[in-house]
Amino acid sequence: MQAVGLVVEYNPFHNGHFHHVQEAKRQTGAEIAVAVMSGQFLQRGEPALVDKWTRTKMALAGGVDLVIELPYVYSTALAGEFARGAITLLDAIKCSSFGFGSEQGTITPFLNTFELINSNRQQYNDSIQAAMKTGVSYPKALHQAYEKLTIGQPDQYIDLSQPNNILGFHYIEAAHSIKSTIQPMTIQRIGAGYHEDADRTKHIASATGIRKALSEGQDIAQFVPPSSYKLLEEWLTKHGAFMSWERLWPLLKYAILRHTPKQLTIFADVQEGLENALIKHAKASSTYQEFMTNLKSKRYTWTRLQRMLAHIYTGITKEQLQAFTSPSYIRLLGMTTEGQRYLSVNKKNIELPLISRVASTKDEMLALDMQATTMYGLGMELFSKQKIDEDLKTPPIRI
Amino acid sequence: MQAVGLVVEYNPFHNGHFHHVQEAKRQTGAEIAVAVMSGQFLQRGEPALVDKWTRTKMALAGGVDLVIELPYVYSTALAGEFARGAITLLDAIKCSSFGFGSEQGTITPFLNTFELINSNRQQYNDSIQAAMKTGVSYPKALHQAYEKLTIGQPDQYIDLSQPNNILGFHYIEAAHSIKSTIQPMTIQRIGAGYHEDADRTKHIASATGIRKALSEGQDIAQFVPPSSYKLLEEWLTKHGAFMSWERLWPLLKYAILRHTPKQLTIFADVQEGLENALIKHAKASSTYQEFMTNLKSKRYTWTRLQRMLAHIYTGITKEQLQAFTSPSYIRLLGMTTEGQRYLSVNKKNIELPLISRVASTKDEMLALDMQATTMYGLGMELFSKQKIDEDLKTPPIRI
Repeated sequence: MQAVGLVVEYNPFHNGHFHHVQEAKRQTGAEIAVAVMSGQFLQRGEPALVDKWTRTKMALAGGVDLVIELPYVYSTALAGEFARGAITLLDAIKCSSFGFGSEQGTITPFLNTFELINSNRQQYNDSIQAAMKTGVSYPKALHQAYEKLTIGQPDQYIDLSQPNNILGFHYIEAAHSIKSTIQPMTIQRIGAGYHEDADRTKHIASATGIRKALSEGQDIAQFVPPSSYKLLEEWLTKHGAFMSWERLWPLLKYAILRHTPKQLTIFADVQEGLENALIKHAKASSTYQEFMTNLKSKRYTWTRLQRMLAHIYTGITKEQLQAFTSPSYIRLLGMTTEGQRYLSVNKKNIELPLISRVASTKDEMLALDMQATTMYGLGMELFSKQKIDEDLKTPPIRI
Repeated sequence: MQAVGLVVEYNPFHNGHFHHVQEAKRQTGAEIAVAVMSGQFLQRGEPALVDKWTRTKMALAGGVDLVIELPYVYSTALAGEFARGAITLLDAIKCSSFGFGSEQGTITPFLNTFELINSNRQQYNDSIQAAMKTGVSYPKALHQAYEKLTIGQPDQYIDLSQPNNILGFHYIEAAHSIKSTIQPMTIQRIGAGYHEDADRTKHIASATGIRKALSEGQDIAQFVPPSSYKLLEEWLTKHGAFMSWERLWPLLKYAILRHTPKQLTIFADVQEGLENALIKHAKASSTYQEFMTNLKSKRYTWTRLQRMLAHIYTGITKEQLQAFTSPSYIRLLGMTTEGQRYLSVNKKNIELPLISRVASTKDEMLALDMQATTMYGLGMELFSKQKIDEDLKTPPIRI
């Protein structure tokens, strides 16, 4: 029984994701699809629109057979760490392949790019560092270094300015670094650029476009499977709103202002005077949007600032984040009957403990996932009278 | 020009306080009354019903000529420290006397009690420590030790089980410890015990009774001067509610759960396993009342727990609280024309800097007052669309 792995956020699960799951299964011939999904906080440093249980239901309804949680430590990390956490878990659960969506759409240029960078690692890193020293952001520095490396023969390589290509590169790099035999494959993203607004003439829009449409109160039925649509509607009826940084702003502002500048530096990425800027702008801002607009500078990307804010919000310190070398468990969020069968068959080969029900916080990495869930839940309590399910003792969703 | 000093919270200013101001002036012959008033957080560890500016207006309308702020460090401390901060300020601003309300009502038994305890300090302290070791609360231990000391001749001494007598004792002790020549006098509290409910047949009720009546939506016009009544009404119209721990509960709960047990121990009084109890009960409780009922044990008084919570709420650590030996400034919150005249006349004799307008946070004790005001203000934002005045650049109220 073969499984193909997917690295996902499903924020929310849409038609593009549905297409991706079907294609990954079809092209690899795998019988089941395993999604390693971020929990309540995502790689762009944002709280998920709806909680992980609801997104798990969407995934299972959309063709995924097993949903496992990407621990907070990885789900809110830079692309490299994010990829390493995810691929390690897909490898540990014995996926024979993994498939990712990309702008590129074919795997050979990814392998070429990885080979090129891997054999010129020192030169590449030096060149990134040099660019950073001129004051540009990390993504820009990386782009400049890459252009230098591929000069004269760009067609053999991927375009590393495309967000999904970047992630794909990191997945391949991660598989190599953990010496996994897992086989990469890629599927061309169709119908929508990463940051594009939802196009009403199509049935596929990016998750970013869909979230924007949702925040503006527009109907998104054409972009998501009926199951997702129903779950989003149910959430809205139950809680009155989708989760967002704007909703969490009163708590985030309070969290920031509760610290001295020095105390703030215990959180990852709070450095180089950002501790003072955080306090200054939090005091002066009434909304999250206003705050971020004031905080944003050329030096830091929006997502880097947001990841830093996620850590401040959850109270998870740099020391806590850096205490780990590798995922220590596989947390099951949901499974179909097929997914369950896959687990029974492969149980003895899976090296990490499978966690169906969180009984205690003894595992420190898992404790951080629970912390993130609790903090997400407290944010919900500001606008919803209904509580979300907490980690403790919530069993996996089964369909 | 003589001034009598008063140590107050005015939460809110009521008829008993009005009586106290008039009597203090009459009995001492002082031309003005100076009140050293707690800011946004009080000695019982509670946020004030209405902010310090509104309470300053009440005080000025009620006969007080100068209102100065008791710094947060002292306003939320145990009775001994609270008294030391307050008396030091009244001494620094050159009050010739200070008057306090007491159950006792005459000063001689206070002086006798102080003399007795002061000359038997070691025996008294040993006896308190011994009682504490049997597991009783601090006030109980103190009571037992005191009974032992005064055995056979209780009539010459004050009843140290009465809350206002305790405070009075500490004021006299404080004056002695700073070698002040300030003269103590006391005024019999009339009409209401400290913890009694408001009695509708009278015109005097305790602040506790009045707060309870307010929280139940009862009319309190008979218990407060018309000026206080008007200010309370205006506050309610503007903000929709009075401040309370219950209102701050979503933020307090978030603050507690954002920490690991170990991190919580940086706050004063979080020890002996309270760090775990805080997290456990915060998770399980929907209201402040429920939380406190679960947290309360024989070992700790309600007010001690609340003071600890005030520090957790404001984010002010044990280290920050313990950084000071004595008040470093006199913060003016409000003054009448007479009060202003007093300051002009005595300016050269006043040893501490007079602060009318907070321009910066360079003084670290003052920075904590500002921090407490900011945190109180963020709590307000949960239920009011109107902001309170912040410390920065708010000038004293003048009438």
